[in-house]
Amino acid sequence: MNTAAADLDEVAMLERAWHDVSPAPARRLLIAAVQAFAERGYHATTTRDIATRVGMSPAGVYVHYRSKEELLYRICLVGHRHSLVALRAAAARSDDPVQQLRDVIGDFAAWHALFHTPARVISYELNALEPAHLTEITALRHEMDLLVRATLEHGVARGVFDVPDIPGTGLALLSLTVDVARWYRTSGRRAPEDIGALYADLAVRMVQAR
Amino acid sequence: MNTAAADLDEVAMLERAWHDVSPAPARRLLIAAVQAFAERGYHATTTRDIATRVGMSPAGVYVHYRSKEELLYRICLVGHRHSLVALRAAAARSDDPVQQLRDVIGDFAAWHALFHTPARVISYELNALEPAHLTEITALRHEMDLLVRATLEHGVARGVFDVPDIPGTGLALLSLTVDVARWYRTSGRRAPEDIGALYADLAVRMVQAR
Repeated sequence: MNTAAADLDEVAMLERAWHDVSPAPARRLLIAAVQAFAERGYHATTTRDIATRVGMSPAGVYVHYRSKEELLYRICLVGHRHSLVALRAAAARSDDPVQQLRDVIGDFAAWHALFHTPARVISYELNALEPAHLTEITALRHEMDLLVRATLEHGVARGVFDVPDIPGTGLALLSLTVDVARWYRTSGRRAPEDIGALYADLAVRMVQAR
Repeated sequence: MNTAAADLDEVAMLERAWHDVSPAPARRLLIAAVQAFAERGYHATTTRDIATRVGMSPAGVYVHYRSKEELLYRICLVGHRHSLVALRAAAARSDDPVQQLRDVIGDFAAWHALFHTPARVISYELNALEPAHLTEITALRHEMDLLVRATLEHGVARGVFDVPDIPGTGLALLSLTVDVARWYRTSGRRAPEDIGALYADLAVRMVQAR
């Protein structure tokens, strides 16, 4: 797949995934900002760069967003809520600890491959958020952390997992899935679902499921 | 530890680690560039920003480096060579597969905590390199990949490891250690050596060492 086609696919995918961001021009600006921040970094991107991508004037951006920082904040908010919904749905699919861990880590790894561009922005540009926004997003990340820990605790309580360091293992599992967004290429030979299956296996090994 | 003190510590640490970059002003510029790129991103940093950090004029930068891109390239080269030396030393310490895997992954995870600022730059700004430079750095990253794979193959050949997907497991192990640079904070409660010990344990679990 060439880069332009991959970009188009990702725009179409984000249009579907973020359909609740309305009106449509606000959604298009959010997606354009994701791409601009991913390419050149938050600090090197101007609101004019973002506006130009969707054929708007910089003034048009301010109809929907107060500032460039608000665009980043909205991306982080929508992106984290979206991935938290995916994580919760995965955790709710089974009560069996091994299957639950497989679903949570497998789905989250696949999510980071599929949505690698927004995932990079929301993982690497957090420090550019205003303090109050950073606090809000950090709370969402903490919820993900707690969800993974709960999965580990569930398996330990059932006597199925052996995990001496639950916070550390939870952190490592989340870190492993988050970093998929860094190395994943649409042109690579592993599809998002293959990465999910491999990572689900590795997670089960890490907890020494009996 | 406050941020200014942590910054000072990291500068001192890089001064020692990169002592073979000479003359001293060239080394100081390289370290200043690491910090500037980590704070605002490569594209938002000017050679003037870098020069100012060490009390030089922009013209002073060009005495040592042709361009901002050459600074990034040198950071990537020095950083990757430095970490490759650390990886090779870790792999050579023991012939026992379990101990070798512990040493390689434990040391590399600790390295990414200790050198988190240059590690972030060399992991996240690769796309800004000129094609020939990117090819050279990618070859160094591939050597790291081969070293981790060789460690896995060694354990499988000895009948000690059970690894159905060696390239995938090697990729995941490297990815796990690289992402330490993203989440590590000098103010956090885990020291680099604690992270190394935890990750060494998790690696051994991932290969189901008997």
